[in-house]
Amino acid sequence: MTAKLAPALLSTLGGRYYTSAEVFAAEQEHIFEAMWFCAARSADLADPGRFKKVQVGRESVLLVRGRDGVLRAFLNVCRHRGAQLCVEGEGEVKRTLRCPYHSWTYALDGRLVAAPNIGTLTDDEGAPIDRYRYGLVPVALTEWLGYAWVCLADTPPPFEDVMAETARTLGDPEAVDRYGIGALDVGHRVVYDVAANWKLIVENFMECYHCSTIHPELVGVLPEFARGVAAQANIGLGAQFGSGVAGFTVDGGAGFDRLPGISEEQDRRYYAITVKPTVFLNLVPDHVIFHRMYPVAPDRTVVECDWLYTGDVVGSARDVSNSVELFHRVNLQDFEACERTQPAMSSRAYRDGGVLVPAEHHLAEFHSWVVSRLAAAL
Amino acid sequence: MTAKLAPALLSTLGGRYYTSAEVFAAEQEHIFEAMWFCAARSADLADPGRFKKVQVGRESVLLVRGRDGVLRAFLNVCRHRGAQLCVEGEGEVKRTLRCPYHSWTYALDGRLVAAPNIGTLTDDEGAPIDRYRYGLVPVALTEWLGYAWVCLADTPPPFEDVMAETARTLGDPEAVDRYGIGALDVGHRVVYDVAANWKLIVENFMECYHCSTIHPELVGVLPEFARGVAAQANIGLGAQFGSGVAGFTVDGGAGFDRLPGISEEQDRRYYAITVKPTVFLNLVPDHVIFHRMYPVAPDRTVVECDWLYTGDVVGSARDVSNSVELFHRVNLQDFEACERTQPAMSSRAYRDGGVLVPAEHHLAEFHSWVVSRLAAAL
Amino acid sequence: MTAKLAPALLSTLGGRYYTSAEVFAAEQEHIFEAMWFCAARSADLADPGRFKKVQVGRESVLLVRGRDGVLRAFLNVCRHRGAQLCVEGEGEVKRTLRCPYHSWTYALDGRLVAAPNIGTLTDDEGAPIDRYRYGLVPVALTEWLGYAWVCLADTPPPFEDVMAETARTLGDPEAVDRYGIGALDVGHRVVYDVAANWKLIVENFMECYHCSTIHPELVGVLPEFARGVAAQANIGLGAQFGSGVAGFTVDGGAGFDRLPGISEEQDRRYYAITVKPTVFLNLVPDHVIFHRMYPVAPDRTVVECDWLYTGDVVGSARDVSNSVELFHRVNLQDFEACERTQPAMSSRAYRDGGVLVPAEHHLAEFHSWVVSRLAAAL
Repeated sequence: MTAKLAPALLSTLGGRYYTSAEVFAAEQEHIFEAMWFCAARSADLADPGRFKKVQVGRESVLLVRGRDGVLRAFLNVCRHRGAQLCVEGEGEVKRTLRCPYHSWTYALDGRLVAAPNIGTLTDDEGAPIDRYRYGLVPVALTEWLGYAWVCLADTPPPFEDVMAETARTLGDPEAVDRYGIGALDVGHRVVYDVAANWKLIVENFMECYHCSTIHPELVGVLPEFARGVAAQANIGLGAQFGSGVAGFTVDGGAGFDRLPGISEEQDRRYYAITVKPTVFLNLVPDHVIFHRMYPVAPDRTVVECDWLYTGDVVGSARDVSNSVELFHRVNLQDFEACERTQPAMSSRAYRDGGVLVPAEHHLAEFHSWVVSRLAAAL
Repeated sequence: MTAKLAPALLSTLGGRYYTSAEVFAAEQEHIFEAMWFCAARSADLADPGRFKKVQVGRESVLLVRGRDGVLRAFLNVCRHRGAQLCVEGEGEVKRTLRCPYHSWTYALDGRLVAAPNIGTLTDDEGAPIDRYRYGLVPVALTEWLGYAWVCLADTPPPFEDVMAETARTLGDPEAVDRYGIGALDVGHRVVYDVAANWKLIVENFMECYHCSTIHPELVGVLPEFARGVAAQANIGLGAQFGSGVAGFTVDGGAGFDRLPGISEEQDRRYYAITVKPTVFLNLVPDHVIFHRMYPVAPDRTVVECDWLYTGDVVGSARDVSNSVELFHRVNLQDFEACERTQPAMSSRAYRDGGVLVPAEHHLAEFHSWVVSRLAAAL
Repeated sequence: MTAKLAPALLSTLGGRYYTSAEVFAAEQEHIFEAMWFCAARSADLADPGRFKKVQVGRESVLLVRGRDGVLRAFLNVCRHRGAQLCVEGEGEVKRTLRCPYHSWTYALDGRLVAAPNIGTLTDDEGAPIDRYRYGLVPVALTEWLGYAWVCLADTPPPFEDVMAETARTLGDPEAVDRYGIGALDVGHRVVYDVAANWKLIVENFMECYHCSTIHPELVGVLPEFARGVAAQANIGLGAQFGSGVAGFTVDGGAGFDRLPGISEEQDRRYYAITVKPTVFLNLVPDHVIFHRMYPVAPDRTVVECDWLYTGDVVGSARDVSNSVELFHRVNLQDFEACERTQPAMSSRAYRDGGVLVPAEHHLAEFHSWVVSRLAAAL
């Protein structure tokens, strides 16, 4: 064999990618505000007039369901003197959003519909003031998998690319669709405040070399994870439940009926997909675990995690704690590892990064992707 | 009519004026430390030896009343090794200010009067050390309206300009004098810590377009404020009490006897004046409400508000709560609006600012003034 | 006498040396990370497998005692993906340090000894992975006076220079050795969190002009300190106990038997030495007080102070509170003075610094030394 061996150890990103305010600012502009960003579960905004405030990159975004049933997003800023329309996390209005400072009032589609004295105002050509021009600044919004994805770019990239990339990861364009995620209900939600850079959380999610060390319960259900090979490195294969395992639960006991649409080969398997930049999908036969990250600072990320079940399970108030507990423990174990890693990112020992073993080599693609997104800015 | 209409909507300052550390640093240097800054109520320093520490721009300033009855201001820094002479907010000494670190001791006029071993010290010419040269660094101080105004500029501008500008705003050079503000007593004081840029607080004070939305009690007393036209836009006119209103109180009930010096046309009227950069004067027949701002950070301002009454009212401990409550509510309503506006200043929606309706057009002068003060620095 | 008099007042460093983030960064690189830094009491790491985490400049350093009895230091960073090996302040392991993220495992001498799958790994030449190359990054360590001193420089300066400088200060190469500090035991330890720049603490320690003002108990024991002349200005002389003073205690009462090795002339005397950059030594006949500073920010320094006695005193649990209380009060008095000084460092009054009286003139050497260390960076 004359061919040179592939290197066993690849380099990671250098430490400053995880600590620098400049890098984080570039990520906000060129990643979180430039890509489609998963902002909220659509069902949390089911009724007309229901609204929710979400931080997307550096912007406060207001999501609101119109009387016409359409979910829309706007910058959460009154066009007059800049007061935030929505200060509370969420709530409900009747027909309009009214700024509590000077009473400029907007329809749920963003149009300026009223303001004290505004009726007699004209622009400098003598024409009435354009109510769309002074309406709320719209933000692009698409619904997929039951979530609202927004994009702050002037020209948002095609959303189809997000879906195509996900399908490619699973190796089957219909694999995700079969879980019918959009129709599921939130059975449980936990919000984690993690003292680590968002990329450490992505990297942790993408590899399973750490599984045997920190995830005893998960390895109990998915014995092949003890081998340390990441599910995401094996396109479309997922990981098989252990022979004595009845369900994806903390003790391996039975879960719920399998989701109606999934295929035979999806049964008794766990699939993990990263939807860049900030979403993790975990697919198991009877439920879906959906992570959304909100990067707050170079060393802080809020992670909101939904456990999704059929309406039958949630509606009948069945006890989901056994399945919730499994991934809640995984989350805590992962986030502790990330928090333990964050401080070392500023050490001279990590100035040029650490190393990736072969079971982690696919992380290098993520690193390249980050570097290329930020190329213009750094 | 061929003349072009004046634009109905003018632009405000861009958002960075309210968030940038660079702008705030320029304001500290070219506004708060360059202009006359209202530092304290003189009566709080009535007795010889009484002292008070006040933050002016970036400097800690020590105000102290001398044995000769003169109020003086100094930088609050020992000339020896820099310990702060005064750490507590205020207090009283007998004849000297003694640094608690090495006992360098200053007369109340700032002269260095004693220090261990200093008696034998000579300068490099062999002459005794100059006790003024190593005295406390003096800060210019003028008293007006019963307050101590200090100026950190090397060459303070004429104080008469401050008085003339105030008179110009009221349209009558003697209008302010008639209230005899310097002779009034503090009946009540509230200190507010506001999470907003000081200019948002100025802008809020200068316009009344928001009054009908957030100030029900104030509009109850001054019905014309419901029209949303700022008192300060109408030079010298003030705003008239409603017909059924007996006094400037939270329920419109009677206040106290009108101040002895005021004119007939000043009766039953409310006047509001901004004395740039950080003072608001509110004049009503029986009392005066005096706001001083202390800008602490781009997004934080401490506001100290005094309710001033005649010595008769304060000395006889009459109940002032009905008149205090009115403007205390106005303050809370205004500061909440400012705090709601501050976060949007960093949004892309406010990058080029918001808009001013005609009732707010006079704010554009304030904006121009700020821009011109900072022109050299930005 | 025709020679010009030496100036009575010399200048100190300008205020920005005590406040600027840039100066502090330069100090971290060119002082704390470049010089020998006193990190821990060796006896706190007496047993094999005992480890402790210490912050040195910007680095987290892991000190660990090997099975071979040797104390070593490493950067506290796993070479794989950067998790901190040691998160707790201290603890004990058996034979290895195992990273809790992916189980990379290091011997106590730093060698990489195990990692999942690592046995089969080869480098890009096909050779086994070098276990030292991927071992923990070593940090230079020397033990002296019973403390572990570490140096993060690529080429540490000779440790002998530290010892020689200390001997020079005392004017006798054996003066320190006679106290047998390395063999003493810690009788008491206090950790102080001081809101002041580390250099203010050094300057305070180096002069005694402040003693008569703030240290009544210390002056009670060492009456000559009332004259305000610093012990450290008089090489090797120290300061003599007052005639009625039996020991270096808060009330002047008797201490313990004098340390066996000290000379007659060292009896009934107090010696103070600054071992740059961050150690203060206080030598009295029956014990030693040892300060270590950990500069955390321009305006914050953690000071750890050990009171060291013979094994007899500590082993028999004799009451050391009378001698501890004396210097604990001195510490509190000094640190309060430093905290009072820190805020004035940003005043325009201290832009060009304050002044040094003759009793403080030796501080100018410290200032020159700081300036020269930072010359390349500022």
